Amino acid sequence: MSKVKVSAYGVSLDGFGAGPDQSLEQPMGVGGMALHEWVLGTRSFQRMHAEMTGATASEPGREDLDDAFAARAFENVGAWILGRNMFGPVRGPWTNEDWKGWWGPNPPYHVPVFVLTHHARAPLVMEGGTTFHFVTDGIQAALARAREAARGRDVRIGGGAATVRQYLAAGLVDQIHLAIGPALLGRGEPLLAGLDMVKLGFKCTEHVASSRAMHVVLAR
Amino acid sequence: MSKVKVSAYGVSLDGFGAGPDQSLEQPMGVGGMALHEWVLGTRSFQRMHAEMTGATASEPGREDLDDAFAARAFENVGAWILGRNMFGPVRGPWTNEDWKGWWGPNPPYHVPVFVLTHHARAPLVMEGGTTFHFVTDGIQAALARAREAARGRDVRIGGGAATVRQYLAAGLVDQIHLAIGPALLGRGEPLLAGLDMVKLGFKCTEHVASSRAMHVVLAR
Repeated sequence: MSKVKVSAYGVSLDGFGAGPDQSLEQPMGVGGMALHEWVLGTRSFQRMHAEMTGATASEPGREDLDDAFAARAFENVGAWILGRNMFGPVRGPWTNEDWKGWWGPNPPYHVPVFVLTHHARAPLVMEGGTTFHFVTDGIQAALARAREAARGRDVRIGGGAATVRQYLAAGLVDQIHLAIGPALLGRGEPLLAGLDMVKLGFKCTEHVASSRAMHVVLAR
Repeated sequence: MSKVKVSAYGVSLDGFGAGPDQSLEQPMGVGGMALHEWVLGTRSFQRMHAEMTGATASEPGREDLDDAFAARAFENVGAWILGRNMFGPVRGPWTNEDWKGWWGPNPPYHVPVFVLTHHARAPLVMEGGTTFHFVTDGIQAALARAREAARGRDVRIGGGAATVRQYLAAGLVDQIHLAIGPALLGRGEPLLAGLDMVKLGFKCTEHVASSRAMHVVLAR
């Protein structure tokens, strides 16, 4: 059955899903790249990156436990939902349409992507099957549209942390895969703090660790 | 050099160091025992438990990575500091001295133990070298007394979560070993939430996972 899921979500030891002070230079916030160390060298990430940039991967990449989780994160995904900050650092109204996401002309989604925003904007058709749709009427509406676009496949909530938290709190997420890495951020965007995951019906259904991260799957 | 350390401290995936609603029946709070799953079957824990209860261990126990961390947690400890709740479920003034801790006549400490409380009580000499001292003049005073009693060995902050947080926030902890287990508690005593561990000078100096927990050592 079609699921709403969060996948391959890096979390620090102190519970942050992103660093503080996101900017054009530091899309993950200060120190936030540390949350993604586990995935960067995997074959799945290297391939995606090469495809996105048109470059040839310099190394084939690791085929290990981390890679298996990275690959799973892209399986059976029919639509994505992203928060505005995950789409870009631009705030407020779209004064122009120059910003087309962090990912260049061929983003790694290849399916419809619904971007939560308070400011309307025409859909943006990219190369490779990705179309960004800008949704101004809230998380429920975005999910309804994503479900329809996914045609029976899963809807993946990409992030950022605030968006994941909203969907979790609303009881709309079926499954979340976290990769808890050995990083401390000190400050940033908390992922689960203040959310009662037990009351929301989650339990840990899978846990296994690589040398770089502890992978846990929480499901209802 | 003598260190102030927290060791073998179980933490849930959602960042809790103990469950809610501690009671005589549930010393770790509701669901809190899940945080200690990793240690219960180890040889070190089995031995400690057998020694404490006078029973013969029914099984020799696992000798694995978890056991290595459990054993390390007791090495070179010259004194302990415990919060009042970790000593017992009794609240308010000591109306009598019947309560002698959770551990029976021969507690697993075997060194001086300083218990933080607002209510004075005479020292309590137990079997096996453990003496509980009740300290009413705050965490700094307790640490000064524990350091002196430790005679060059380390001071271990045993818990609970609120006590660990106070010592961390005051910049008095040198090292903390967490065992992050695959449990969700939903509610309970948060361990690191709201503490900026980076600003406090910590970084992750060691991380390795067993099938039961991700062990991380944070040090300054």
